[in-house]
Amino acid sequence: MAATQEQYDVIVVGAGLAGLKAARELKAAGKSFLLVEARDRVGGRSKPGEIAGQVVDFGGQWVGPQQNLLLDEAEEMGVKTYPQYLEGQSVLDLDGTVRRYRGDIPNLSFLSLIELMRVEKRWSRESAQLPEGAPWLAKKADQWDAQTLESWILAHVKTKHARTFARVVSRAVFCAEPSQLSYLYFLEYLKQGHGLECLTGVKNGAQQDKFIGGAWQIPSRMAERVESHLLLGAPVHYVVQTADGVTLVTEKGTYQAKRLIMAVPPALAGRIKYNQPLPTRRDGLTQRMPMGSVIKIHVAYERPFWREAGLSGMATSNVRAFNVVFDHTQAGNDMGILVGFIDSRHALELSSYSEEQRRAGVIADLVHYFGEDAQNPIAYAENDWTADEWSRGCYVGTMAPGTLTNYGEALRQPCGRIHWAGTETATQWMGYLDGALQSGIRAAKEVIEADG
Amino acid sequence: MAATQEQYDVIVVGAGLAGLKAARELKAAGKSFLLVEARDRVGGRSKPGEIAGQVVDFGGQWVGPQQNLLLDEAEEMGVKTYPQYLEGQSVLDLDGTVRRYRGDIPNLSFLSLIELMRVEKRWSRESAQLPEGAPWLAKKADQWDAQTLESWILAHVKTKHARTFARVVSRAVFCAEPSQLSYLYFLEYLKQGHGLECLTGVKNGAQQDKFIGGAWQIPSRMAERVESHLLLGAPVHYVVQTADGVTLVTEKGTYQAKRLIMAVPPALAGRIKYNQPLPTRRDGLTQRMPMGSVIKIHVAYERPFWREAGLSGMATSNVRAFNVVFDHTQAGNDMGILVGFIDSRHALELSSYSEEQRRAGVIADLVHYFGEDAQNPIAYAENDWTADEWSRGCYVGTMAPGTLTNYGEALRQPCGRIHWAGTETATQWMGYLDGALQSGIRAAKEVIEADG
Repeated sequence: MAATQEQYDVIVVGAGLAGLKAARELKAAGKSFLLVEARDRVGGRSKPGEIAGQVVDFGGQWVGPQQNLLLDEAEEMGVKTYPQYLEGQSVLDLDGTVRRYRGDIPNLSFLSLIELMRVEKRWSRESAQLPEGAPWLAKKADQWDAQTLESWILAHVKTKHARTFARVVSRAVFCAEPSQLSYLYFLEYLKQGHGLECLTGVKNGAQQDKFIGGAWQIPSRMAERVESHLLLGAPVHYVVQTADGVTLVTEKGTYQAKRLIMAVPPALAGRIKYNQPLPTRRDGLTQRMPMGSVIKIHVAYERPFWREAGLSGMATSNVRAFNVVFDHTQAGNDMGILVGFIDSRHALELSSYSEEQRRAGVIADLVHYFGEDAQNPIAYAENDWTADEWSRGCYVGTMAPGTLTNYGEALRQPCGRIHWAGTETATQWMGYLDGALQSGIRAAKEVIEADG
Repeated sequence: MAATQEQYDVIVVGAGLAGLKAARELKAAGKSFLLVEARDRVGGRSKPGEIAGQVVDFGGQWVGPQQNLLLDEAEEMGVKTYPQYLEGQSVLDLDGTVRRYRGDIPNLSFLSLIELMRVEKRWSRESAQLPEGAPWLAKKADQWDAQTLESWILAHVKTKHARTFARVVSRAVFCAEPSQLSYLYFLEYLKQGHGLECLTGVKNGAQQDKFIGGAWQIPSRMAERVESHLLLGAPVHYVVQTADGVTLVTEKGTYQAKRLIMAVPPALAGRIKYNQPLPTRRDGLTQRMPMGSVIKIHVAYERPFWREAGLSGMATSNVRAFNVVFDHTQAGNDMGILVGFIDSRHALELSSYSEEQRRAGVIADLVHYFGEDAQNPIAYAENDWTADEWSRGCYVGTMAPGTLTNYGEALRQPCGRIHWAGTETATQWMGYLDGALQSGIRAAKEVIEADG
């Protein structure tokens, strides 16, 4: 796609799922548009990778039965799902001691389990009090947004293991420490993700299914449908907004449109230069929605030895760096693959290490969870999202206390001719591929309705 | 200064007090250097303005007796001080009720005052436990950094007015809500500013003196000493670091040096493009140190009528938007001037209003504090720092919970040939002009020692 003097109806910045979905909606509505992407690939936080000759997801990979937008999109793109393997016993490493359990209920003390049930009920109850799309309007919004999740845990969770579990949830779900999260933001996220059990669960939860061949195929195929509108490798340098339209200066050329959809996280949108400084609340939001920290890792073995030992391949730890692990063995292949995450402060720390050092640590953790058979993988592959210039972290932009109540309104509020998309702006499944799709649909609707 | 092929020893980015001081140090050490500034003026968060024919400070303006670096620099630049006017009674507006008091002790209930004394002692004691330049190493660092200042207030302050006062302090000192601040960051700031009494006080405190003719003259005169090295109006687009040196691509040309001193706040340094993505901890810091929100306002009257009524012109409010006010009448002039601030959430809200609307609100607040005489000013002048592209807020980059302990190390840690300055990196008077000078001296020392 060469630079032209044509004026588009819309330019979409960011060819992740949000931008791709917006583009597809614009196409369906007969709008002229250009889809601009900084990277030389589409998909954003959905990305293919390779280990031992197998193509895997280096980005988002799971889908839950509640994620209808993603399931529908996958179906339309001809990408099918298969269930996350969860037979046998899972592993919970608490303070260095490995415990095994079956199903979704971790092997904690009876008192801790009772307390977790109580806490989860309270979270459900409080989440339900957040008005749709406007958690800052909840009656207790100020109170909930004035404290960290960690403060809340210390004040309301008494048993040691229940506390530990809540902290592990924070790291696994947000790739952030509970000290970094607003309790209100946490409740909003729970609400959008249908509650803790759904967010963290496999069966009936957000990790129930995977995509045969990988989730990355969905954006890849979506991109094929709008291929003639797509401009890759074009980082945006400058957005010039006037009364009549928007001019976008990119690495590859300058383009004009009536409206712009910015489908990138606030932390990245803030790094673009605008001719008119954005309103204080919007600019302030871009300074206050940092991305979580995570390194995604695949480890391949000749066989899924853990299955043979009656293990599911799922492991969680509150002390080890490779702290969430799942079986990721591909259907119809003898090779066993484990996939997992180094997240939050562990990612921060280990990001500065060499791949070799990380590899050694990861294998040591797997041996700790699954025994000596884990010692000799045939391949290792990792993707450090914190070092990715066009994401600067994953899975999602997080919020510290005081952000939602003071800056939340700016999440979706258009700034003149600039409209905002991206999973951070979703009202269902924020942080997930599904939320990205929702945001693209909503932003496309805004611009279509704005110009008739 | 035209673009050259010359390689400098050092390029300094940002001609605020930090960058200017670094430049002066480099000059004294005989280094070749270029000082690059995005704006068409020097001074950064120190800036001249005008009201009714008088030149005033639209940026930082006060100096306390502990701020030796600033006092020394002012003396060398021939800028003299005069005391902040504080005769007569000051005004405290609590929940809409105006109370008057003398001196530094606000007119609160006896119980609240007793409690405030107790709280202040505790803050002093806890601040003293923070290792110099490394608060994240304090024994209780994790605990203190896991909670907001607001959570701390709710847990440890019982009387209503003492709570109110602590919240007012947060807004006045940080231009941020107590919900947005880490308690550890708060303690570190207190420590660097010699305690609450000093930070918030006039006599013997950080607001004791002002500069005759304005503080802005200090950077202005510093710039004269390095004028031939100064390049204004040159926003930085790109920093290319190699094993041998650094290339800086700016609006005005491309320049090369052995090392770079980046003397801008993390929130702004993060918006510059680097050829090698910065280490995770450094990039993460730039996503997690948002600038406070403040609009500085001057209002001029024919006479300082408040003085005639036995008032100091100082006012503080926990509910009004124009919530901190001082007398700013210039020596040798009949005209009375008040200076004050709309800060934190009030600034966020009012930044989107018209100047006319803000003016009306400010005058209404002044009438509330000082009576009907405040109704008819002869001039009004404001500076909205939140709308300033090259500051994006004031006075200082703040930290939410979980930032100092996880990202604090990155504040001053050089990234290869890139060194960091700016008041956010100070270990004394972070957030103040004095801290900016300290950071410039420290960064210059780093580069001088690095290359011998």
